[in-house]
This record gives sequence, structure tokens and C-alpha cells, in this order.
Amino acid sequence: MNTTHMDGAPGTPVTIRWTEDDAGLVILDQTRLPGSEVYLELRTLEEVHEAIVSLRVRGAPLIGITAAMGVSALATARSMEGGGTAAEVAQWCGELAKTRPTAINLEWALGRMASMARGSEWENGGELAHALHEEAAQILDEDRVMCRCIGAHALRLVEHGASVLTHCNAGALATGGIGTALAPLYLAQDAGRDVRVFACETRPLLQGSRLTAWELGRAGIDVTVITDNMVGALFVEYCPDIVLVGADRIAANGDVANKVGTYGLAVLARHHEVPFYVLAPTSTVDLATPSGADIPIEFRGAEEVAKGFGSRTAPAGVRVWSPAFDVTPARLVSGIVTERGVHTPPLGDALAEAVRASEYRG
Amino acid sequence: MNTTHMDGAPGTPVTIRWTEDDAGLVILDQTRLPGSEVYLELRTLEEVHEAIVSLRVRGAPLIGITAAMGVSALATARSMEGGGTAAEVAQWCGELAKTRPTAINLEWALGRMASMARGSEWENGGELAHALHEEAAQILDEDRVMCRCIGAHALRLVEHGASVLTHCNAGALATGGIGTALAPLYLAQDAGRDVRVFACETRPLLQGSRLTAWELGRAGIDVTVITDNMVGALFVEYCPDIVLVGADRIAANGDVANKVGTYGLAVLARHHEVPFYVLAPTSTVDLATPSGADIPIEFRGAEEVAKGFGSRTAPAGVRVWSPAFDVTPARLVSGIVTERGVHTPPLGDALAEAVRASEYRG
Repeated sequence: MNTTHMDGAPGTPVTIRWTEDDAGLVILDQTRLPGSEVYLELRTLEEVHEAIVSLRVRGAPLIGITAAMGVSALATARSMEGGGTAAEVAQWCGELAKTRPTAINLEWALGRMASMARGSEWENGGELAHALHEEAAQILDEDRVMCRCIGAHALRLVEHGASVLTHCNAGALATGGIGTALAPLYLAQDAGRDVRVFACETRPLLQGSRLTAWELGRAGIDVTVITDNMVGALFVEYCPDIVLVGADRIAANGDVANKVGTYGLAVLARHHEVPFYVLAPTSTVDLATPSGADIPIEFRGAEEVAKGFGSRTAPAGVRVWSPAFDVTPARLVSGIVTERGVHTPPLGDALAEAVRASEYRG
Repeated sequence: MNTTHMDGAPGTPVTIRWTEDDAGLVILDQTRLPGSEVYLELRTLEEVHEAIVSLRVRGAPLIGITAAMGVSALATARSMEGGGTAAEVAQWCGELAKTRPTAINLEWALGRMASMARGSEWENGGELAHALHEEAAQILDEDRVMCRCIGAHALRLVEHGASVLTHCNAGALATGGIGTALAPLYLAQDAGRDVRVFACETRPLLQGSRLTAWELGRAGIDVTVITDNMVGALFVEYCPDIVLVGADRIAANGDVANKVGTYGLAVLARHHEVPFYVLAPTSTVDLATPSGADIPIEFRGAEEVAKGFGSRTAPAGVRVWSPAFDVTPARLVSGIVTERGVHTPPLGDALAEAVRASEYRG
């Protein structure tokens, strides 16, 4: 894993790209933000695996993109050595699928790559690698278009002067484009609308304060950080106009798995009669998962909580319960915005139709 | 400010005591927990002031005790120099009253000290110092009795096998005795009941993970730390039997100011039909404050959030909104436990009666 430093660009950051020779990835190491903007080169299965597990790349869409681009890069590297088979691709996909359980986009993207690999008889590794590169490039391109579509559909939810509460990071840093939950904020800015964003810091890994505040701030959008337990006070004091969050998996009935804390936000939003919207691509909708109870929830290690940021923040050896995600039941969701539109209850029917339409188009 | 290290004792920790010569205080420096158990000697007004402002001592009852014992120590020191007048005492009380605005116990304890000082004609500084020492000692003793009474009254709320959710630290470390919200847990343990406690870590200063987990753990009570945004998931997964929290000020109508995050817990508890109890002495009840809207809320500096634990956890210069407390409306409170008993709605009447009864006794 080589480290390179690159100048930050204005607007939204580039989260991922191929190396010059297409046989590796260059990722923005999100564990180093906001202190340092460091780009890492990944050239082996182990490096791609580690980058996902260690959350150097994170966010449901970006995990899928990274896995797909990683498989393509590995195939390119193998073809340079004169090798590369569909069986190898299947093995890489199997390994990468085990990295994180909750975000369905990972499975979805790897499914597309594995399916492409086994879909034809390949003359040689080069031909296979070329096809996989095309597929991964399409996943990345589709993601960028998807972000813009979600933003455009959701733009009507964000009026001039609106205050918006968000959680974790469902922004440019979670995707290959301008994000999901944050996409309408970038488009609102382009349209000359002022918005004020409140970002929950999102313990234990602080994706809200480290990532969301960083990317909105560098884009010139007004952002205020609060700790997660200040949400209740915020509802009383500032009453945000709307809550916008992303999703890691949406069940067929409209239940939403997202970063832990989302459910508490939804309960508070309902208590204060504030609209609560989830913004995610149809690739996050898993029609094979009937309800939220069927979504596998990832648990993280105790030390992320007990020894956060290098200091000891809880007694050594203390018991910690640390789910990375929680499930917000569909009844607390005002609407789900995908690249197909703004879907309102009954969410089950609307989601099924959106997924079908997107598959048809695809 | 001298630093001394002392061996930890079993059971609940000693949070404060006088120095051998009664002209200083020895406090457990709570900013150093859980990593180090360090005791500090305070001998000047500036040192007592700094210890409260920097949260070396914290928790509404303990702040009051520290201020009272500090005034007594200063008077003793002055008397050793041959000085000490009621006017000086009034000035010290005025300075210390400005340290933190929300907890009413500070005002209450300093009010008792100032009132004692101006209540008689003193022969000399020694006589004044002696009377102030008696008053402060009584405040400390009353606090210890108060903790036991609150625990005894609340014991019926904590059955064998109960799971309890708490926030921040309303334990031994917040008082001179066995705590307020945690008092019934210590008494339940003495009575042979098993309890399981979930402690919210309580950002930004982590009183839950640093202090509550530390004091319960060293007493052998089963404690699990969660981050503040995991409360919603906890209600779904484990549904605690009861929520027990302390208070920094209780308004005449039963609205409760407590560590920020308490209100969100109360909303979630109501959503899940879990009883929500506040445990605090009558000295925390402020009949002169009609409702929660009239309680002054302390705001803390941005760096506690943006640069927690020494690392940069949000971009430099980012806007942070950081109230230290929030207000839980009386309608979300199942009951308030004071040293006078378990008070249930209508809370306004019950609190007025409890305060009158305690004043009569006093």
C-alpha cells in the first residue's frame, strides 16, 4: 500500500480512481480525515480487503464501487502476468463479500462482477480483464448519475433557508459522485438556495464530524456539528425542517438499516412532527429481505468505543455493546428517495416498482 | 495544586475530603479517570474555582459540596493568618457561584454558607471558620444521608434481574455518598439482587464511559457501555426495564434539566413504554424556577467536541453547537425520587410538598 498526498480540489472530493495502469486503485483514506487528505494505492486483494474492513473507504455505494473496481484491477494485474480466469474472479468476489455484512450494495456490485466473469468464454485474461473494467466503470458511472438523480428528485424537499439534520456520512465521501443524502444540498447550493446543515458527529467513528462536516465545509455549505446526544435539544431549540439520511440496506417492506443512531433520530423526528427522509439508490433496496428484522447487523469491536481516538475513554476490559447499524421501521419514514423518484408510503409497493423499473432500464 | 496518588478503595470512591489542617480540600480529579486515580489538593480560591470549571469535580450535588467545603477551607486558612470576615466569605461565594450556571445545588450550598457567615457577629476569624466548617460538614453529611434515602426509596424500582439504562454520571462520583441515580443499584447489590446496567458514554466529556462504568465496575456491578446513538437500538434489542437519571435542576412544574441527551432518552423511553425516573435531592428542586424554559443552560466550548481526547475529531474552525444540558418536560417523567420519597405526577404539587417538608426538617 503506497501513500501519496494530493492537493484537495474544490467542490466534492474524488473518493476513488484507478491507477494509471488500471491494475490498482487510488483511494482517499477516510480514516485520516479531517486531519490529513491522504490517498492510498491498493494493488492486492489483501489491500482492497483491508481498506474496506478498516473503513478507509466506507458508505454503502462506495463499498460496492471499491469492491467492483478492485476486482477489475486484480484481473488487470493478473492479465499482465498472463493469467486470469472466471474462477479466480469468483474467488476474489467471495473474499470481498465477507468484508462487511450490512450494506447490500457490496453484494450487488460483486454479483454484477461475478456474473460478468462467468457470462462468457474468455479467450484470455486480457479479454476478461477488459470486460470487468468496463463493468466496474459502468458501476462507477451509474453511481455518479444515480447521485445526481437522487439530488434532483430530493431538491424539492430542501427550500431556500431550510435547516437540515443529517447523520453519519451519506455524502460524496460515501459514493463515487455527490452523495445520496447530501446530494440535494449540493444541488440546492448550485441553485442559489441557502441551507443550514446540522451534522451528528456519529460515534464511535465520527463520520459526521470527520467526514460530513469536512466535505460540506470545503464546498462552502453552512454546517454545524453536534454530538449525537444533542439531537433532542436541537429539535427543541432549532427544530430542523427535515431529516435526511442515507441507508445501508432497505428491506422490501421499507424498513431501513442505516448507521446506528438513525432510529433514535426517526423517533425524535416523529415526536416533533419533522419529516424524515431516506436517500439511497435502488441498489440499496433488497427485495429478498422481507423486513428489517432480517437484515444482518454488523457489530464492531469494543476498543472503537473504549479507546476512541487513542485515549482510554472507558475502563480497560469494560463490556461494550456496539452495533454499527440500527433499523428504522417503515412507519417512521416519511419517504425514500431513489434515482427513480420520491417514494412515499406504502413504501413496499413503491420500492418494488422502483427496483423493477431500474432493472428494466439496466 | 499538589498532586497525590492514593490507592483505590473497594466499594464507592471517596470524591472529596478536607486536608489534615482543614485549610484545603483533597479531591479525586475526575478528568483523569478512568486511566488514573489521582487526588489533587486545592488551597486557594483560584484552585477551587478551576476545579469546578474544568470539571475535576462535577455532578450537581458534588459541585455544591465542593463549593461549601472550599469556602470553609478558605476561611480556615484566613483564620490561620489572623483574618477572615463575613464580607470575605460573601465575596468567595460570589466568585464560586459564577463557575457553572445550570446546577442549582451550587447556589443552594453557597447560599447556606453565606447565610451562616452573615448570621452572627463573629469574635474573630477562627470562630467564623469553625462555624463554616460545621455547616459544610453538615452539607456533606446530609448529602450522604440523602443518597442513602434516595437509594432506599428507589430500591423498589429495581427488581432482581432488572436491566437499567442510565446517562452521564449520577453516581458516587457526583456526590459525597453513594450517588443519586446509581444509589438504588448499590443498595440492590447489597440486597443480593442482580442488576445489569447500560451506561451511555455521554459525549463530549464521556462521564458515562469514564466515570459511571468505572465506579460500577469497581463495585462489581455488571455494566455495559454504549455510545449515545446506540440508545435506540438498545431499546429495540434489550428493552431496559427502567431508565434512571440524575438532575442538575428541577423546575417547580417538574421539568428536569440534566446532562444533554437525557431528553432524547425520555422520548425513546416513552416510545417504548419504559418507565423514566429522575433521582435527585430536594436541593436540586428550584421552586423559584417555574418551568424548564426558565432554566439557564450552560454551553461548552467547541473544542470539547471538535478536538475530543487530544485528536482532531472535526475540521479546524468548524461551527459546533454544544449545550451541556437539555430539558425533559415533566410529561415524559414517570416519577422523581428525592430523599423524601418517590413522587409521581402531578409532579408540581409533589415537589413543592417535598421541598417544604425538607426545609421544615432542616
